[in-house]
Amino acid sequence: MDKLNIFIISDASGQTALTVAKTAASQFQHTTPNYQRFTYVTEKESLKNVLKQAEKSQSVIFHTLTKPEMSKIVIDFAKKHHLLECDCIQKPITMLAKQTGMEPEYVPNLVHNLNSNYFNRISAMEFAVVNDDGKNPQNLSKADIVILGVSRTSKTPLSLYLANNNFKVANVPINPKIQLPDQVWDIDKNKIFGLTNTVKSLKKIRRERMRSYGMNLDTPYSNSKNIKAELEYAKNLYKKIGCRSINVSNKSIEETATIIMSKLGYSKIKN
Amino acid sequence: MDKLNIFIISDASGQTALTVAKTAASQFQHTTPNYQRFTYVTEKESLKNVLKQAEKSQSVIFHTLTKPEMSKIVIDFAKKHHLLECDCIQKPITMLAKQTGMEPEYVPNLVHNLNSNYFNRISAMEFAVVNDDGKNPQNLSKADIVILGVSRTSKTPLSLYLANNNFKVANVPINPKIQLPDQVWDIDKNKIFGLTNTVKSLKKIRRERMRSYGMNLDTPYSNSKNIKAELEYAKNLYKKIGCRSINVSNKSIEETATIIMSKLGYSKIKN
Repeated sequence: MDKLNIFIISDASGQTALTVAKTAASQFQHTTPNYQRFTYVTEKESLKNVLKQAEKSQSVIFHTLTKPEMSKIVIDFAKKHHLLECDCIQKPITMLAKQTGMEPEYVPNLVHNLNSNYFNRISAMEFAVVNDDGKNPQNLSKADIVILGVSRTSKTPLSLYLANNNFKVANVPINPKIQLPDQVWDIDKNKIFGLTNTVKSLKKIRRERMRSYGMNLDTPYSNSKNIKAELEYAKNLYKKIGCRSINVSNKSIEETATIIMSKLGYSKIKN
Repeated sequence: MDKLNIFIISDASGQTALTVAKTAASQFQHTTPNYQRFTYVTEKESLKNVLKQAEKSQSVIFHTLTKPEMSKIVIDFAKKHHLLECDCIQKPITMLAKQTGMEPEYVPNLVHNLNSNYFNRISAMEFAVVNDDGKNPQNLSKADIVILGVSRTSKTPLSLYLANNNFKVANVPINPKIQLPDQVWDIDKNKIFGLTNTVKSLKKIRRERMRSYGMNLDTPYSNSKNIKAELEYAKNLYKKIGCRSINVSNKSIEETATIIMSKLGYSKIKN
């Protein structure tokens, strides 16, 4: 595998440039990207020091520097020293200035401004943690979305991803041996999503979990016959509830979340 | 406030284009962006339909379409109909192709490839949920990072953010009336971070929480004298433990997380 040195330089947390870099790098499956992140770089001198390091390691540079004069330092340095750079923020800002006819603030780190949207997102994430795995079923009526699923259908990370998009999410485990909380029957079935998977895929994931626990791989938990019975039980239950069902086999969390949001008519993003 | 229509068009979840758009839009504090996200757009016909909607609503377009011929459809349409567009992915891909001398895969949705990194991140998020709020102190030794803090110092969202960066994080509440788990004394103090805040800021946040519970705002929980005593207790405890302490007042989760990662020497990002 080839090594690929990537510098992330930002006057804030660097999350935007890192997201762009990772998405682009994913298109090169035979390289191992080596990311170095330089955050809250707001002084010209410290920027120049970072650039010298980039030259030394012959890195490509992804940057989000809000002030055009800071961005220009990177661009000029890269040109002079034959480095490759990608400005991830100046064009988008210029474009929005054109569209709105407004002057940008040119102040770093406004995206995580501690405004009410920000606090709503934090409270959605706390809601997801408090209402994970069937805890506090009395809260199900307060949730925007309720996820049901047998063990290892990715209920927890899916809930957190949706929470990060500002939805209040609770998840409830489904198992023939566990009594479903009564509250599930009382809530709007349109906000309930039942996760399923294939026996094969679930078996693989569960054996992996046993391995990570240092246990014997072949337990009742990872036994095909039991898994099949669990999945049958879940499918019948979803039908009885009248909720939608999603097969998560070979789907990433992001894909499943997008399906849920679009079924709910949220192509409009909650801010 | 001026309205700003933003279309996010992607052949995957659209997270990258949305991140770029939100960061750019944050520079225009007097507009209300109205985002519409179109995901998993992989067919030319459905792309053209989305573009017609963009024209109707006079939206600016942020797009991440992996295949150059798809991206070109957006660019040509925008030019013809005088819309503004920003391609967030083609330049980054071209740049990495140049740097590596390799051909990109040109396959959509590889960033959430279900590889081992992906599963590590999911298991880190599950770890954070299982080890939130002092649950399961026997796991503290397995954590990469242990967060301590009095109530409402953002322990949970901070833990989740760090988990999303692949760290195994546990958090433990600090309160003079709660016994600290013995395990805290046995672990490496360099991986422990104690959160503090100002009395004023914490009082405001706690009163807000009381309000959201529909309770009287002035409780012992939101009383300045009690908060001061709690914070004093926490500071003394952090000193006794010998761990680092971070004042989160006016800091976003992202800023606090970046401080922790850099203190641990992780400017190199865990994949």
